[in-house]
Amino acid sequence: MPQTSLMMTLQFSSSGTPVNVQAKHFLIPGLGRYDHKYSPKLPSKFPKASIFNSHQIPNPILHQPPVNQSVAAIVFGDGSESRLYPLTKRRSEGAIPIASNYRLIDAVVSNCINSNINKIYALTQFNSTSLNSHLSRAYSGASLGKEGFVEVIAAYQSPEDLGWFQGTADAIRRCLWVLEEYPVAEFLVLPGHHLYKMDYQKVIESHRNRKSDITIVASNGITKRDQDQGVGVLKINTENQVMQYSLKSNKEPVNYAVAETLTRCNDSSYSYIPSMGIYLINRATMVNLLNNHFPKAMDFGTEVIRGALSLGMKVEAYLFEGYWEDMRSIEAFYQANMECIKKLNMGYNFCDRDSPVYTIPRNLPPTVVNDAMITDSVIGDGCILNNRGARSKVQWLE
Amino acid sequence: MPQTSLMMTLQFSSSGTPVNVQAKHFLIPGLGRYDHKYSPKLPSKFPKASIFNSHQIPNPILHQPPVNQSVAAIVFGDGSESRLYPLTKRRSEGAIPIASNYRLIDAVVSNCINSNINKIYALTQFNSTSLNSHLSRAYSGASLGKEGFVEVIAAYQSPEDLGWFQGTADAIRRCLWVLEEYPVAEFLVLPGHHLYKMDYQKVIESHRNRKSDITIVASNGITKRDQDQGVGVLKINTENQVMQYSLKSNKEPVNYAVAETLTRCNDSSYSYIPSMGIYLINRATMVNLLNNHFPKAMDFGTEVIRGALSLGMKVEAYLFEGYWEDMRSIEAFYQANMECIKKLNMGYNFCDRDSPVYTIPRNLPPTVVNDAMITDSVIGDGCILNNRGARSKVQWLE
Amino acid sequence: MPQTSLMMTLQFSSSGTPVNVQAKHFLIPGLGRYDHKYSPKLPSKFPKASIFNSHQIPNPILHQPPVNQSVAAIVFGDGSESRLYPLTKRRSEGAIPIASNYRLIDAVVSNCINSNINKIYALTQFNSTSLNSHLSRAYSGASLGKEGFVEVIAAYQSPEDLGWFQGTADAIRRCLWVLEEYPVAEFLVLPGHHLYKMDYQKVIESHRNRKSDITIVASNGITKRDQDQGVGVLKINTENQVMQYSLKSNKEPVNYAVAETLTRCNDSSYSYIPSMGIYLINRATMVNLLNNHFPKAMDFGTEVIRGALSLGMKVEAYLFEGYWEDMRSIEAFYQANMECIKKLNMGYNFCDRDSPVYTIPRNLPPTVVNDAMITDSVIGDGCILNNRGARSKVQWLE
Amino acid sequence: MPQTSLMMTLQFSSSGTPVNVQAKHFLIPGLGRYDHKYSPKLPSKFPKASIFNSHQIPNPILHQPPVNQSVAAIVFGDGSESRLYPLTKRRSEGAIPIASNYRLIDAVVSNCINSNINKIYALTQFNSTSLNSHLSRAYSGASLGKEGFVEVIAAYQSPEDLGWFQGTADAIRRCLWVLEEYPVAEFLVLPGHHLYKMDYQKVIESHRNRKSDITIVASNGITKRDQDQGVGVLKINTENQVMQYSLKSNKEPVNYAVAETLTRCNDSSYSYIPSMGIYLINRATMVNLLNNHFPKAMDFGTEVIRGALSLGMKVEAYLFEGYWEDMRSIEAFYQANMECIKKLNMGYNFCDRDSPVYTIPRNLPPTVVNDAMITDSVIGDGCILNNRGARSKVQWLE
Repeated sequence: MPQTSLMMTLQFSSSGTPVNVQAKHFLIPGLGRYDHKYSPKLPSKFPKASIFNSHQIPNPILHQPPVNQSVAAIVFGDGSESRLYPLTKRRSEGAIPIASNYRLIDAVVSNCINSNINKIYALTQFNSTSLNSHLSRAYSGASLGKEGFVEVIAAYQSPEDLGWFQGTADAIRRCLWVLEEYPVAEFLVLPGHHLYKMDYQKVIESHRNRKSDITIVASNGITKRDQDQGVGVLKINTENQVMQYSLKSNKEPVNYAVAETLTRCNDSSYSYIPSMGIYLINRATMVNLLNNHFPKAMDFGTEVIRGALSLGMKVEAYLFEGYWEDMRSIEAFYQANMECIKKLNMGYNFCDRDSPVYTIPRNLPPTVVNDAMITDSVIGDGCILNNRGARSKVQWLE
Repeated sequence: MPQTSLMMTLQFSSSGTPVNVQAKHFLIPGLGRYDHKYSPKLPSKFPKASIFNSHQIPNPILHQPPVNQSVAAIVFGDGSESRLYPLTKRRSEGAIPIASNYRLIDAVVSNCINSNINKIYALTQFNSTSLNSHLSRAYSGASLGKEGFVEVIAAYQSPEDLGWFQGTADAIRRCLWVLEEYPVAEFLVLPGHHLYKMDYQKVIESHRNRKSDITIVASNGITKRDQDQGVGVLKINTENQVMQYSLKSNKEPVNYAVAETLTRCNDSSYSYIPSMGIYLINRATMVNLLNNHFPKAMDFGTEVIRGALSLGMKVEAYLFEGYWEDMRSIEAFYQANMECIKKLNMGYNFCDRDSPVYTIPRNLPPTVVNDAMITDSVIGDGCILNNRGARSKVQWLE
Repeated sequence: MPQTSLMMTLQFSSSGTPVNVQAKHFLIPGLGRYDHKYSPKLPSKFPKASIFNSHQIPNPILHQPPVNQSVAAIVFGDGSESRLYPLTKRRSEGAIPIASNYRLIDAVVSNCINSNINKIYALTQFNSTSLNSHLSRAYSGASLGKEGFVEVIAAYQSPEDLGWFQGTADAIRRCLWVLEEYPVAEFLVLPGHHLYKMDYQKVIESHRNRKSDITIVASNGITKRDQDQGVGVLKINTENQVMQYSLKSNKEPVNYAVAETLTRCNDSSYSYIPSMGIYLINRATMVNLLNNHFPKAMDFGTEVIRGALSLGMKVEAYLFEGYWEDMRSIEAFYQANMECIKKLNMGYNFCDRDSPVYTIPRNLPPTVVNDAMITDSVIGDGCILNNRGARSKVQWLE
Repeated sequence: MPQTSLMMTLQFSSSGTPVNVQAKHFLIPGLGRYDHKYSPKLPSKFPKASIFNSHQIPNPILHQPPVNQSVAAIVFGDGSESRLYPLTKRRSEGAIPIASNYRLIDAVVSNCINSNINKIYALTQFNSTSLNSHLSRAYSGASLGKEGFVEVIAAYQSPEDLGWFQGTADAIRRCLWVLEEYPVAEFLVLPGHHLYKMDYQKVIESHRNRKSDITIVASNGITKRDQDQGVGVLKINTENQVMQYSLKSNKEPVNYAVAETLTRCNDSSYSYIPSMGIYLINRATMVNLLNNHFPKAMDFGTEVIRGALSLGMKVEAYLFEGYWEDMRSIEAFYQANMECIKKLNMGYNFCDRDSPVYTIPRNLPPTVVNDAMITDSVIGDGCILNNRGARSKVQWLE
């Protein structure tokens, strides 16, 4: 690769004497990673000059990063688009609007922000235009703090690989060179189209306390998934250790039993509990699994998690009790919208000041109501409601 | 002022030889003006070195700036606070909320933006905290284009003057060193607490076509001001030339007559018409009037405008036909709010896409309505309305 | 598509009475386009209620948009990556750094901004991560005015098309549903990796004055392209009308002759002149060519432009005299970098205040120099230069 | 105050029936404080309606806010302008440029950000235009996280008080209604024009561990202050408890002795140590001291701190060992600039990646150097250096 040094040494002596310049690294500020493989092969006789980029000087690896900076989130903007078609005709699932002011992905990104996870990568490839536009407008700086970002990684072609992402595992593997930029301790893998509120810090605490290789969040709550196909099911023992990962299919219905929590379980029976598709995984484990053990794995759940189990890794379940909706159908999406307007909100609360939901700040005029009778509704800004007559329930999605 | 050169020459030869440095100017990028009086007194024997700040190289005066960059607006955030007390207990008039999502000053700033005037100075001193906070959040970059800004100039003490602004003319005079930064052709002086929509470009066109020194915008519209005190009244001839500027007082009611427009008027009679307090004035005229002719004038209308008339300057009236509300009382403020919810909005339209009203983009959840009956209302985001029973008219100002 | 109405009518009467709601359109604020095909099929018996989104009320087509808003730019972030490999190992051409503080694409985007074109779509698919990240950080709001944006459209899969962009024409065709959002009069197609300064307004003026269907910008300047392969070559007559579009290949070298400008040409001879790959094309013409005439065309130059010529459309050349560098090789890239440090800058001037080059605003410490002797160099912020000894020429690209 | 209710009830029944509306609070989102004294006096017979602003629902006082949100910083933008005149001719001390890219106040604000204190109030009144402009551009959102802000409070007139701030204590007292908005546990009072790096979290820890009422940071480091007048001097015992606060004057030179740290001190002797003017003070203590005990105090150090000591409050010293420069003279300012370019930076390091210094992100071209020989210099972006001849030391301050 002789041309490489050309980029590194765009300086030449006009007099034929040796170049007195040595670029130790070649970092683009804020985007340093893109060049870290272009280490220059400079002759060893350059003793006299040194040019540092001040960004490289300090310890490149922070050995003990603060807790809230030690996890990077990997959010999948795509989901099961076919199940929500035609809502996904022009958008990926994460970009579907909900509750007037929001997109689905705002729920997961807001969970991250409220859990002090501010390094967020969003991987997209299906109908991604709307999602990319939303993310870059909604989270371009504000609310993520001095080190935070939401970086969209759209599927791309490269000299090494001309194809699309072939699945969740393949997507992560191909983006590892970006994802490895910061010295995080764990990656948190998240579906971008689920609706729930979770403090991921508790997952991280549990993961670290139990010294797990992988922690999978499983739904132990009110949400029923008995008839769902395609949901990952965890077989866990009484200590919440994952023994098996299987996909629920039509033919062999899993005999669900709500898992008992640790303290209540003293017998030796196993439980089956639906995975929420949320994985917390140590950084080195992630790289090792994707690059060394299963370099051809495409799907994260069925291939990488099962593979990790087969390798005897320590895989634990974190049981989540709260409301969780994975938008597996148009009806589920409709029900989730209806949750917003319940008086006693048992589901997802968009108006919770302690765990606010973030989105694009907008500059719309207030809604004007003329002669309307409105009951049990959610109304965003920028509407004009002209209504005469009887009672109506308006859920204005905008 | 021997110390001045210290700042300019923070470089010294360690060897005793003369300093080979010449700072032609000393500009802070983006804030260049603050130093333009620190021109260094460097010895003339500096022949060999020159340091330019790249910002100074090009023509410092753009001789023909594009039309939309040739006017700077000077907005007064304060108004007649006593008339709206106690709304002004903690805020200046410009910061009073209106129509749920806005502050009064948004109307005038939005007029500027929609008229492509993007250099806006807001002068404040009375209860200015809320206004300053609003302006810096609402207009910090977006929507003002590559050269635009809203700069708040709060009253301040300086070595030359330890007092507050003593009036509109005094405020402009003391800020001239800031206002003169850009080579604008005219200044547009605006009260910040009036509610109206105006395309200032038409005022500018009229001003330039008629080669006026000063153009005063006067209300020729539906708004009646017969009983108001303290309003400036213009006596204009049939060609809309201003002959006299007087203040309406209690004792001598002015006999208003709606002024005829230019084309319809051929007789020699005069008209009296209320000034809207909006002045377009040539840059050099402004400096000359404030610094040379009337260096002690405090009020712009009664002192500077009258003075300009007495000097024989060409002062013209621009007649404005539309809705205009100067918030002269709490009732006027209440009526202006009520205008927002009229079905056929004859007054001020906050929902006009062609001339949108800008404000702080916000990130609030949508309003949730439970069992409410809402008629003729304006509702902003972030409310929860729980209402049972009879009809009600809600103007929710938030 | 019965489910569609589900999305439109997420409101139901709990009492079994008909829903008194009609969503005329279903616009997402700021992203209105994504739903304009979801027009609801509501039963005709809904007479009593109407809900407007205030964004739809005014005229959806501005019949005479202001000049600077009537053109949308389509910038290709990818280029001829193979020619600049390995600079393009991790990045597309547009994302390659130049002159310390910039990326190549900044030149073209800055041209747009300085020409008052503020609707910019960047189409990417090859190694696009770095480019997308740069564009969304550099142009997310500031400097583009109240209506402006740089929107990145990364290649994506959709239900209709699972493949990558198959060329420039295919990319535009697949993104037309996004590009058609605003009622622009013309599209300006731009390669994103060229280095030049051009006032596109002059191209637009020429295009409109001559009532062309398509205007192609051609290089009539100092830049020589005699040995280049793959460059499009225009055969133009003395009135700058394009007669033929051909690709320069190895075998048949085109006999270039610098085209005479219109006023100087009175004879009937033809000229051959290299195309710069810049096309201004009427909106309707674009849609018609891509969707109706040549729905399978992949490349814009060789297929769509040639097709337009074969259809007898009016295709004109706009001759550009200035510096132009299309980065056809690593050497060209090196030379372009060296241009930055020439004393008499004959090429591209990064320090021109009248046509500034925009990029990511950064927050780096100043460069610290210790004992360095620096000649003919460009130095960005954030470096530490420790250098002893002889003269050196440093072009620090950072 | 009967008019108050007008603002609260801008809604009226058109039918003469009672208004079915109750605004429990009247919060402006994000600016809630401005109205918290306008609690409406609504008649008690309003049983049927309730309107909540969703911002008020949750607990108004977070009883145990996270550590990094429990402190608000109060930064004084003004300093001792007379000592640095004429650098302060057009600017307050905090706005003076340093090290090419920065203003003095950036050092203190960056300390706050790096100590995770993100609620920052800057109080200004002297030549504040430049400082206000800098702060609102530099810190308007980015890097301060979802709850953070730098809010400039310029001196203002109000109905209760028409005068300027009469000193540091008076300024804080008059702004308490703003400062009390968030339920912080302590206020951190900071001079805005000092140059040093400090982790305020350590001060906070010490303060809380020792259950102090007030902690004063004192300089125990290398910086000598023997000849300075006007510096506050603390007499501390061996446990770092403050016994006395005095001002160093010309006549009675304090016999400084570097205080021993706690672990090394076992004898009963006292030490005298210069105060850095940094106070951490419990919120309730602050309010109590300013409003109840010393409602006429103007200066914080000499009046409030001395008063607290006289009341027997627990006032502790926190000893700071590092570099500290309070810019007491032009020479000190010059020396601080020179510190930037030392090879072994013993003073203040602007290039420290672990505790970066923040400022306005700028968009300048890189510096171009032609034939310059530069030694021991700091060079910001946007310069053009044309230099022939001998060696020179350039400290280019922008």
